[in-house]
Amino acid sequence: MNLRFRIEARDPAGPARAGLLATAHGEIPTPTFMPVGTRGTVKAVAPDDLRTVGARMVLANTFHLMLRPGEDLVARLGGLHRFMGWDGPILTDSGGFQVFSLASLRRLTEEGVDFRSPYDGARAFLSPERAVEVQTALGVDVMMCLDECTGYPATRAEAEKSLGLTLRWAKRCRAAWLSKATGQALFGIVQGGFYPDLRKLSARETAALDLPGQAVGGLALGEPPAERWAALEAAREDLDENKPLYLMGVGAPADIIEGLRRGADLFDCVLPTRNARNGQLFTRLGRLAIRNARHRQDERPVDEACSCPTCRSFSRAYLRHLFQTGEPLAMRLASVHNLKYYLDLTAGAREALLKGTFSEYYRNFHEGLEQGRAEGYS
Amino acid sequence: MNLRFRIEARDPAGPARAGLLATAHGEIPTPTFMPVGTRGTVKAVAPDDLRTVGARMVLANTFHLMLRPGEDLVARLGGLHRFMGWDGPILTDSGGFQVFSLASLRRLTEEGVDFRSPYDGARAFLSPERAVEVQTALGVDVMMCLDECTGYPATRAEAEKSLGLTLRWAKRCRAAWLSKATGQALFGIVQGGFYPDLRKLSARETAALDLPGQAVGGLALGEPPAERWAALEAAREDLDENKPLYLMGVGAPADIIEGLRRGADLFDCVLPTRNARNGQLFTRLGRLAIRNARHRQDERPVDEACSCPTCRSFSRAYLRHLFQTGEPLAMRLASVHNLKYYLDLTAGAREALLKGTFSEYYRNFHEGLEQGRAEGYS
Repeated sequence: MNLRFRIEARDPAGPARAGLLATAHGEIPTPTFMPVGTRGTVKAVAPDDLRTVGARMVLANTFHLMLRPGEDLVARLGGLHRFMGWDGPILTDSGGFQVFSLASLRRLTEEGVDFRSPYDGARAFLSPERAVEVQTALGVDVMMCLDECTGYPATRAEAEKSLGLTLRWAKRCRAAWLSKATGQALFGIVQGGFYPDLRKLSARETAALDLPGQAVGGLALGEPPAERWAALEAAREDLDENKPLYLMGVGAPADIIEGLRRGADLFDCVLPTRNARNGQLFTRLGRLAIRNARHRQDERPVDEACSCPTCRSFSRAYLRHLFQTGEPLAMRLASVHNLKYYLDLTAGAREALLKGTFSEYYRNFHEGLEQGRAEGYS
Repeated sequence: MNLRFRIEARDPAGPARAGLLATAHGEIPTPTFMPVGTRGTVKAVAPDDLRTVGARMVLANTFHLMLRPGEDLVARLGGLHRFMGWDGPILTDSGGFQVFSLASLRRLTEEGVDFRSPYDGARAFLSPERAVEVQTALGVDVMMCLDECTGYPATRAEAEKSLGLTLRWAKRCRAAWLSKATGQALFGIVQGGFYPDLRKLSARETAALDLPGQAVGGLALGEPPAERWAALEAAREDLDENKPLYLMGVGAPADIIEGLRRGADLFDCVLPTRNARNGQLFTRLGRLAIRNARHRQDERPVDEACSCPTCRSFSRAYLRHLFQTGEPLAMRLASVHNLKYYLDLTAGAREALLKGTFSEYYRNFHEGLEQGRAEGYS
């Protein structure tokens, strides 16, 4: 198995830790943020941009890639790394979340889920075995078990049912994965809604599968933060603390900080790239809406403390001009900046954990946002 | 005046030549293609991409920039070079072409042209003096005289009238430019429709203004190639052959080759970037429609002879996937490739002119297209 995880430092005040995750495509210092490359490309940026902003691992999506262009084609062309021109580690989401949120006319059974492709309406099928098959063919470093995720709110009965199915599917994913033995890693996913005892049950059973890594899914669905963190804490306590912990789809910068404070090592979220395309930029002082008229003549970079190529070369006034005139370069420059912000955020936390100054880092992070609110950032 | 032009080599068989154009922002080996950055950005590519593909000078547009974001703002932020993050030479189109093709409710008088902005309907005015004022404020290396351009077809009377106005405006541009003496260069523009004797008249009068450079405008408007080249040849014979000659808005790769064969030094055209965004890629074998199903599994680069970052890292299959799924990266990768194709085309011609092998280069160019037609390129 081409995955090794080593914890390098721990926060004396809590479960946060700095680690090193070694894969066949390179080492990943953790905690780290994984840019989202759903369709085999991180929207509006190229692999060289990803390296420039310090990305070490990217996320792609099983559901989308199995439909377009198809995993058979990707495999024939040498696998996803080669296809998308990214030679660093790749993790794929199993596609469960997308089946339930995007596909129409889906029919869920114990066996798997029948659905229609959102691209062309063609019938498709995803099962635990099929999810592993697709991810194996893509050649990714880390694959995820197929899970079913309840929304928010969900009844206890719904959460219980979904957790049970997710576990039975995880066992089938594990068997399919073991039968292939390609050296790729498989992570299990904790579900259980916002019922801490269900999260603990799911975590125990997931840990018992003894997979190379573990994830907590089904968070950041609109729940109050207190419920989110209670669910994560409950799960973490019953997981194997020597394995990497991936907090799926979370979230805003403050959520990333809260997640890693609670022991999560890997993060992904569409926010930095999606918000970039809408002209919302992240800074240590908060969010900046670049289309706002007050940036019209502002020759400062988006964030004076940022070393990204966008902040090194372009003014707020120029970025605003690009957004106002609908120029495609706007998307790239904003995405590069936001990704750099997220990667600096996790890299800064890692550095603080290694130096034993995480509580100071945490305080500084919130002081920055507070200062920003006084200065009109949102 | 910060512009010097030196001819380094001439084609023994015709007026084609290799030269060196020196500006305050660097030297430009000619012939060369200038990527079009209408609004202060070459669509979908960043300044570092432009350097990578070998661009030496970019074109921006007076009409667009005076309306959005306004030349006053650009000047206050340090000029167009700094605003757009491009420290190489910049030439601006005067805006005449856009006034006549884009603006609504325009009213043309001897004084200038009143029009409504296509952005917000606001009233605006462009005159020879105003065109020079805007371009001076932008701080570009080469500014163009405001001209009026007839379409195709146009009667002799229309062409004569437009030529006369263009000349009177050129004299006023020259006076405004001389009064400023900023070191920026001003080029005159030959008009005259498709009447060779009118082109000669316009060329003689334009040459008599003794401006630092000269351009031929009003071509590539849908006329038959024979008329286009007759107009260019007629003009060139009566221009000052020791000054740089800019062939405005021309054109397809074969047109660039025909233009430089007839002595033009500078070229611009939206084709490489516009076609890129539509999935049409230029190669030495002809044009390739990347969305075509036959590229679905093709692991070859767009052009095996191309050294651009797109061809070095990505397959046709991957590019097709990006276009099929509407990913923004498609536009950048395709634009970078097409610009590299155009810049290699003019750089190759220059090299051949320096080596005395231009007629061979010309033959090879057409042989490539012929071979491509046999292989299904268009």
